[in-house]
Amino acid sequence: MSEAQKAAIIGGGVIGGGWTARFLLNGWDVAVYDPDPDAERKIGEVLANARRSLPSLYDFALPDEGRLDLVTNINDAVGGARWIQESVPERLDVKRAVYRDIQAHAPADAVLASSTSGFKPSELGEGAARPEQILVVHPFNPVYLLPLVEVVPSPCTDGAIRDRAVELMRGVGMYPLLIRKEIDGHVNDRLQEALWREALWLVSDGIATTREIDDSIRFGCGLRWAQMGSFQTFWLAGGEGGMRHFMAQFGPALKWPWTKLMDVPELTDTLIDTIADQCDQQSGGMTPREMERVRDNNLVGMMRALKRTDWGAGASLNEHDRSLVPEGPAAPEPVEMFRRQVPQSWLDYNGHMNEAHYLEVFSQANDRIMALVGADQAYIDRGLSFFTVETHIRHLDELHAGEGIRVTTQVLQGSGKRLRVFHRLETDDGRLAATGEHLLIHVNLSLRKSCEPDEPVRSKLAAYEEAHRNLALPEGAGRSIG
Amino acid sequence: MSEAQKAAIIGGGVIGGGWTARFLLNGWDVAVYDPDPDAERKIGEVLANARRSLPSLYDFALPDEGRLDLVTNINDAVGGARWIQESVPERLDVKRAVYRDIQAHAPADAVLASSTSGFKPSELGEGAARPEQILVVHPFNPVYLLPLVEVVPSPCTDGAIRDRAVELMRGVGMYPLLIRKEIDGHVNDRLQEALWREALWLVSDGIATTREIDDSIRFGCGLRWAQMGSFQTFWLAGGEGGMRHFMAQFGPALKWPWTKLMDVPELTDTLIDTIADQCDQQSGGMTPREMERVRDNNLVGMMRALKRTDWGAGASLNEHDRSLVPEGPAAPEPVEMFRRQVPQSWLDYNGHMNEAHYLEVFSQANDRIMALVGADQAYIDRGLSFFTVETHIRHLDELHAGEGIRVTTQVLQGSGKRLRVFHRLETDDGRLAATGEHLLIHVNLSLRKSCEPDEPVRSKLAAYEEAHRNLALPEGAGRSIG
Repeated sequence: MSEAQKAAIIGGGVIGGGWTARFLLNGWDVAVYDPDPDAERKIGEVLANARRSLPSLYDFALPDEGRLDLVTNINDAVGGARWIQESVPERLDVKRAVYRDIQAHAPADAVLASSTSGFKPSELGEGAARPEQILVVHPFNPVYLLPLVEVVPSPCTDGAIRDRAVELMRGVGMYPLLIRKEIDGHVNDRLQEALWREALWLVSDGIATTREIDDSIRFGCGLRWAQMGSFQTFWLAGGEGGMRHFMAQFGPALKWPWTKLMDVPELTDTLIDTIADQCDQQSGGMTPREMERVRDNNLVGMMRALKRTDWGAGASLNEHDRSLVPEGPAAPEPVEMFRRQVPQSWLDYNGHMNEAHYLEVFSQANDRIMALVGADQAYIDRGLSFFTVETHIRHLDELHAGEGIRVTTQVLQGSGKRLRVFHRLETDDGRLAATGEHLLIHVNLSLRKSCEPDEPVRSKLAAYEEAHRNLALPEGAGRSIG
Repeated sequence: MSEAQKAAIIGGGVIGGGWTARFLLNGWDVAVYDPDPDAERKIGEVLANARRSLPSLYDFALPDEGRLDLVTNINDAVGGARWIQESVPERLDVKRAVYRDIQAHAPADAVLASSTSGFKPSELGEGAARPEQILVVHPFNPVYLLPLVEVVPSPCTDGAIRDRAVELMRGVGMYPLLIRKEIDGHVNDRLQEALWREALWLVSDGIATTREIDDSIRFGCGLRWAQMGSFQTFWLAGGEGGMRHFMAQFGPALKWPWTKLMDVPELTDTLIDTIADQCDQQSGGMTPREMERVRDNNLVGMMRALKRTDWGAGASLNEHDRSLVPEGPAAPEPVEMFRRQVPQSWLDYNGHMNEAHYLEVFSQANDRIMALVGADQAYIDRGLSFFTVETHIRHLDELHAGEGIRVTTQVLQGSGKRLRVFHRLETDDGRLAATGEHLLIHVNLSLRKSCEPDEPVRSKLAAYEEAHRNLALPEGAGRSIG
């Protein structure tokens, strides 16, 4: 593969730092320009958060990190860049000035994207040297975890720039949502804002505290919203009558006099103080940094759960995983199955990786060796597969969240119905953390009985057995307890 | 324990059916009254959904189901009931008439709760025989999964009734949010409604389709909302400056002219058709029943993930788990560790429980035997624990989502630093699905080295070893592969 692509991040902070992490951890070189003397520290903190969490979303190792440069002028940032992300303060005059500088030095075919949460791309491009290069690519915090980006072209954004933006966003694991018509605030912030406005009224009128409002979200509708939006939720609620039934029942309620949405609450000092004090109490003494880590742990866990159902954000992750699966390796030495990072959702109260996940890693390796000998999804769809019937694991060393690990596998037996494998789980710094020995039996899925493998599995299995025949029996094979 | 408590469900449908399931699966007897001839079928469908999902949230078996009776009059429903849940159509006159019937026959100290999403409890209680008995307990669909209930007493609701409502809701695994001041729509529906209104505008103005709006939620802010509300999210976004900083930056945006929230979109036939058609397309050919199952699978997976971080809905589940842990049993026969159900989030592409979860079940059993010999959280907090160093699993039979399973354990060795256990994983219908043999070593957590156990573990371990000394070596112990 040719040299890494380059992204220019103009403006750091939480959003610029998040973009930096997203590109860097996906193998891009990143040049950051931000005149804030604190920029390096802030970006470093976001990067630390990202390194412990973004790789946790995937079952295979991300590409090696690109090179990170903090530069002192815009030219050095945007020269040779394929992607330029502007995340400077939300002021039109400031942004437009920055685009003039950027476009004086940037390649004409680079994507020039703005993180703006409010301005329309046509406003951004007014007076620009090349307005067709500019569009909005609006992310959500934390940018290194949440996949959504709203991609908003202006009426004059070049079609090729727009298409490249969508493609490159997918390439770094984002979920690009193309917004068909530019509008202030785009789509999602308008939804969040509406909810926020009602929430402010409830606090202002003493109906509920910030904690009570937040609890009403995260113990109820928020859980739903992580996997289905309001329309799909209400479509479901309409049951057999569908959406028309739902709207017939609940549409009229929108006109009830109890709505406060006809007005905006006055943000007096008193209200701001009330909100600020309630929020501080709500955080229960946790610092923002601590709370960020909790948030990221929660998001990692839930997004990994959605991979199991292959739904929403989880489906998006599964798709990105497929781009990370390594090439099938050649025998005859023990074969590397994959590299990956230990996600924090795998820890237990001992502070190390819970024992069950050793078998999850070896199960992933079993899936991988199955695929390598031809028992992939297409083969399984033909009604044939392997079941694991026996497992022996030596837990030799602890593993911690964020550790890079690799699994190498030796085929001890691969003839007839029997596939006996021996996996070694090693850390990137060379420690042997565990071994897993497994006996898999080839089965007919309809009959739920063992049977001889079909082609291509039969031949590929035999080839692996042959290739590994002369390797020494690995230390730990054939062990029992006691 | 004395006989089961009784809940009366007045009005079936999605909400009444959800309440039925929630009480029944938590061991209550339930009497349902609904004159709808289709009531039994509809409730049956909700119950089927609930049985495959509610038990999946927990790591231990729920109580045995209570008795379900569909009765033909309100007297039979509410006689002897401790809890009465009204979920009849959203019309004040209908509800008030039902309360008259209910209160003519119900115990005076039963909680009389309404599922109403809009009315204030004081409105409900107007003209009632005993308004002090009435309050709102407003759930969220699916009631058998989402833990939030808004508990809204009126100014004259009896304090003991209110307190009992909160306590009994916790007892069935709900998260009761006490609303301090009654208001139309309570708290959360007002938030959902606000978002919904903006969403309707976006569709009406052709800015986005229902799918695009929903995607903007479930790939972005929705994921956040499943674990933190808007206030906490914005507090975090304010970084070191906290909430005041956030509001200074973003407060003024609320007054921007681009908000449409000053008005309600007209629900014309055209708009309703547009929405209904887009929603049908969005569902991609899945029926509502199929979509409900997907939703429930997603919710189970994400809520289980939040148990790992002990946060939000997950913390609520962990707390309920603690009430489900069985009593410490007596030796000398192999000891039942626990019973539980196989959650659907444990399945893999073979259509059965993924191999890694066998070790998750045995890991849970290891935790349990550790607790039984005194190595509970308090002991671990003293810096001592057990690490599993070797595992041998025989995968003997498949397990499927929803199957009831139990684990029984024999202590093969429990002296000095070594704890060797043998677990049998059986289904409720008597099949032996797997065996797990494990060697655990007692360790000093600070030094990360093995050491002799302290009291009470030393003595309790020895007692278990003694109690099991004369049991035959279980079939499968001491096995190796190959």
